[in-house]
Amino acid sequence: MQAGVPGRIEVVEVGPRDGLQNEATLLPAATKVELIERAIAAGVRRVEAVSFAHPRRVPQMADAEQVMAAVPRREDVSYIGLVLNGRGFDRALAAGVDEVNVVVVATDTFSERNQGMSTEQGLALWSELAARAHREGVRPTVTIAASFGCPFEGTVSAAHVAELARRIADAGPAEIALADTIGAGVPTQVVDLLARTREAAPAVPLRCHFHNTRNTGYANAVAAFQEGAATLDASVGGIGGCPFAPNATGNIATEDLEYLLTGMGVRTGLDGPALAETGTWIGEQLGKEVPALLGKAGTFPG
Amino acid sequence: MQAGVPGRIEVVEVGPRDGLQNEATLLPAATKVELIERAIAAGVRRVEAVSFAHPRRVPQMADAEQVMAAVPRREDVSYIGLVLNGRGFDRALAAGVDEVNVVVVATDTFSERNQGMSTEQGLALWSELAARAHREGVRPTVTIAASFGCPFEGTVSAAHVAELARRIADAGPAEIALADTIGAGVPTQVVDLLARTREAAPAVPLRCHFHNTRNTGYANAVAAFQEGAATLDASVGGIGGCPFAPNATGNIATEDLEYLLTGMGVRTGLDGPALAETGTWIGEQLGKEVPALLGKAGTFPG
Repeated sequence: MQAGVPGRIEVVEVGPRDGLQNEATLLPAATKVELIERAIAAGVRRVEAVSFAHPRRVPQMADAEQVMAAVPRREDVSYIGLVLNGRGFDRALAAGVDEVNVVVVATDTFSERNQGMSTEQGLALWSELAARAHREGVRPTVTIAASFGCPFEGTVSAAHVAELARRIADAGPAEIALADTIGAGVPTQVVDLLARTREAAPAVPLRCHFHNTRNTGYANAVAAFQEGAATLDASVGGIGGCPFAPNATGNIATEDLEYLLTGMGVRTGLDGPALAETGTWIGEQLGKEVPALLGKAGTFPG
Repeated sequence: MQAGVPGRIEVVEVGPRDGLQNEATLLPAATKVELIERAIAAGVRRVEAVSFAHPRRVPQMADAEQVMAAVPRREDVSYIGLVLNGRGFDRALAAGVDEVNVVVVATDTFSERNQGMSTEQGLALWSELAARAHREGVRPTVTIAASFGCPFEGTVSAAHVAELARRIADAGPAEIALADTIGAGVPTQVVDLLARTREAAPAVPLRCHFHNTRNTGYANAVAAFQEGAATLDASVGGIGGCPFAPNATGNIATEDLEYLLTGMGVRTGLDGPALAETGTWIGEQLGKEVPALLGKAGTFPG
């Protein structure tokens, strides 16, 4: 193993939430549950399963309770529910998620469009929900959206994101995720932002969330784990996007990430061929060709 | 700029040759010349323009002489012609290429399929053509194909490729290119192979050639320039493949590579938006959606 390459990386499967929320095709809850079951069978142990957004705003997630009621409950599998406000938090708690992930958007314009509040209001919401989560015994994490660039405001300063992380850390997050929501970032930026965030919130484990909008996502993933991120998000098939960010395309694909990581000698606990098959399958459910490549190319050596 | 990030990288546009040779659509010579002209207008200064393969084997390159006769000849632009045998070398010389690129395939099975000879015979051919090139005053370079994996033999040992490079260096190549013909490689492999090759052929500048078959191409490119490769190949639109390697897909896209490099503070001399437009244009000529993403996503900030 070369310097800077860790022995193990945790991969969070975000396909059921971030992957599906922007798709034109509304999938039945049973298909979402099958997607989750397939991911777990392929070795996934943390799943971003649902979002508790308003059903009118994100119709693809309207059946969040139904999905959570049907997923297999296992000691070794943790389900994440995305939460954008107090009402969403109530629903997440009632649905029995293991983790609530609260979104704080790094820029005001995108924050207003995404969840109808400023970044400052997002921070206040996080503090309030974090306190409730700690009381209720559910694991609270934060995603800082648009950490690498904003579709409306353009460049986002790393110092600003690190300052957000410092303030977020005060309320005791179990983890902070830095999200390149629109796939604008490059590896040097990943290294810089992770270093600054770690300095600002030294006690908090860091997760990274990359979209492959401009083909930088996998290079960013390598930079992230070489710079000490313990966890990476990915979606089976590379499906995904954001309904409130123009031109945002899919997450990095779980199967292609697994190929990359395993090839580099990093353990993931994931089954690449099973993930590739699931990527092809979810594409069939959505009636589209998915961006993931492993399902087409095959593993190597084949 | 961070450690390991160079100030400048040279990008060779291989779209006119590697990009087009595997496409089902036969483009007229005038379109190929327009592709080359557009690349030069977008800042490209080295172009893999043609291959002098047998027209029956690679019909897309049958008009190599016609293309070379029509391209703009400029002091600051160097045209590379790919050569697989003595007859191809004669044609390249007559057509007035600035550089001949001789292919040596790292594995016997692929070498037989690609050019009807063993690896050993490929090395002998290289020595013979290098001597002729030196006499004729044309710049001779070598591509070691399948350096990161073979579609027929599987894993290729880095020690074997480095030993090939050592023997190739004896005949005085102006450059050695390490090619991941089937897009199987990962960044740790790139670092290892470059280090070994540099040790085996310390005086020879190194170039890398990546395909994005399994979404590792851009991460490999980052690893390559951080490990000291001076030059990277890419094709506008990410078009490409190899007629003799099953499932080989496109090269990394010039426009997406430019976005990555420029974002990392590496100078390329390339015009990203102009390349993205050309990527979209070549897709229209081929009647297909190209793998490059910048043309769809747009640059950032937009």
